[in-house]
Amino acid sequence: MKERILEYLRNSKKYVSGEDISRELNISRTAVWKYINKLKEEGYSIESSSKKGYRLVESPDRLSYEEISPLLDTNYIGRNVLYFDSVASTNDIVREYAQRGEPEGLIAVAEEQTKGRGRMGRRWSTPKGVAIAMSMLLRPNLSPQFVPTITSVIAVSVVEALTSVTGFDIKIKWPNDIVLDGKKLCGILTEMSAEIDAVNHVIIGMGMNINQDDFEDDIKDVAVSLKSYSGKSFERKLILAEILNRFEENYEIFKFHGVSPFIDKIKRFSALLNNRVIISNINEKFEGEAIDIDMDGCLIVRLDNGDVRRVISGDVSVRGLYGYTP
Amino acid sequence: MKERILEYLRNSKKYVSGEDISRELNISRTAVWKYINKLKEEGYSIESSSKKGYRLVESPDRLSYEEISPLLDTNYIGRNVLYFDSVASTNDIVREYAQRGEPEGLIAVAEEQTKGRGRMGRRWSTPKGVAIAMSMLLRPNLSPQFVPTITSVIAVSVVEALTSVTGFDIKIKWPNDIVLDGKKLCGILTEMSAEIDAVNHVIIGMGMNINQDDFEDDIKDVAVSLKSYSGKSFERKLILAEILNRFEENYEIFKFHGVSPFIDKIKRFSALLNNRVIISNINEKFEGEAIDIDMDGCLIVRLDNGDVRRVISGDVSVRGLYGYTP
Repeated sequence: MKERILEYLRNSKKYVSGEDISRELNISRTAVWKYINKLKEEGYSIESSSKKGYRLVESPDRLSYEEISPLLDTNYIGRNVLYFDSVASTNDIVREYAQRGEPEGLIAVAEEQTKGRGRMGRRWSTPKGVAIAMSMLLRPNLSPQFVPTITSVIAVSVVEALTSVTGFDIKIKWPNDIVLDGKKLCGILTEMSAEIDAVNHVIIGMGMNINQDDFEDDIKDVAVSLKSYSGKSFERKLILAEILNRFEENYEIFKFHGVSPFIDKIKRFSALLNNRVIISNINEKFEGEAIDIDMDGCLIVRLDNGDVRRVISGDVSVRGLYGYTP
Repeated sequence: MKERILEYLRNSKKYVSGEDISRELNISRTAVWKYINKLKEEGYSIESSSKKGYRLVESPDRLSYEEISPLLDTNYIGRNVLYFDSVASTNDIVREYAQRGEPEGLIAVAEEQTKGRGRMGRRWSTPKGVAIAMSMLLRPNLSPQFVPTITSVIAVSVVEALTSVTGFDIKIKWPNDIVLDGKKLCGILTEMSAEIDAVNHVIIGMGMNINQDDFEDDIKDVAVSLKSYSGKSFERKLILAEILNRFEENYEIFKFHGVSPFIDKIKRFSALLNNRVIISNINEKFEGEAIDIDMDGCLIVRLDNGDVRRVISGDVSVRGLYGYTP
């Protein structure tokens, strides 16, 4: 009922009387008054006048279903939302739902994440109300070896969304970071559960810095938020909705054509190409120049001895970007 | 305490008095008598004589820790055993433990599996006491794209174990079935949970037909057990222990050298090589001759037009084997 009152206020845009709401939704005027108070407590700014009734002045920048869904033009991505004021890890939550057979498109979002993690179990911090922590369930009809390419498609969607909202020069640090001003703005964590030749599910987790004023000393050389970079605040819900909108569009293309339609964008947005890189993965560590991204989304690196290596994934350290340790 | 009495009986091999047991284990003679009765209920054949005491005549063919562990010479594979009289799916159980951080080597075994499944969610039947249902947790330090090769290493271990116990001509139907007499004896299901470039865990599930007398009409052309083939019964615990012994040895080699040391055996045991095959996977279906298995464990198929395809995994239908549908 609270959601319906909110929708009613939102649609009318001007003052509506308690009587109108009460009649329209078939509840008592006392009930209307109670729900309005609840909305206020949740951060909605609602003017009340004994003559004119109620008017919605401003909605809080929350990542709840009520706030995101009016901004979505997707069919299935983000249409089921698990919303948490605070949670250990959105990826863990989505994994539970995945194992119970939930269809793709489900997202979990949290205002605060207390045990968020990045790749290889590294910690990722999501302080309350100023960042985005989101995980999404996908069930692509795909062989496991092609799953890394989904990370590239989501990275492209994130850059498109952020660029359209902010106008900033946002780049992809292949394979799974988004950078601004040479620092890390967003990390993407892709997990999969698969049999040898078929994916059961993929979970894309995303942690994005938005309105942090600044960062603690030990990470301020490597971390950036939209606000710490520009001094301006941004609406998190707008950014999240725009990412989901872009992603669904791109994911539909990906389902039919794979990653190849995105290679041009992946190259254009790349923070790596034509730079000196150090690649570390489970088996090896080597240095060279990032010269290309091939049609499968793999990074092509030319070593100093002229050998050319094709890299599916790994830790990348780039001269000129945060965390470069030659 | 039951386990310690069993061990005591097993080690002495002849009659031991209730008094000796009671003194040795520091429990009352009534307690000894109670535990002996419990063991009898569980299928242990124990002779009792008022003069001479107790003697273990025969142990049941169960897959419990007490029965398997005396047969193991492994260091970590099968040293932690989750034993179930009946369970929905051993893979599901092991997955729960995997997510809680259990180290590799854990196995779950069941006398009966009520919701066992094979690849792509297909049903797999494990009737009580005559088959083996076993799942094993591994944590290889591996990129996800190399996980399919673990299936080949376990398949080799199964063939080695079964051949040494039975002497029968056992083959591998690449990638994940074990065949006898052109019919399916054993299916292997490999599941993984992974990030893009690192495996969290791998679960190997195995369903093996041992002492079924025969099979129902709808599957008797495709299924075989050691007994339905030979008329003889086999001890399941011996076979399971031998598989675990062989596997640990092979897995240690695999950890350091990958699948290549196994390619010769994979070829020698192959039911596919030099046969006409039909390959179906998510993206395509094609027919040709299986001409080789390469150093990465991939099947090489020559199409009728002369093209050569490299197959990582897929459904394979082979002329002369069960389920061939041209």
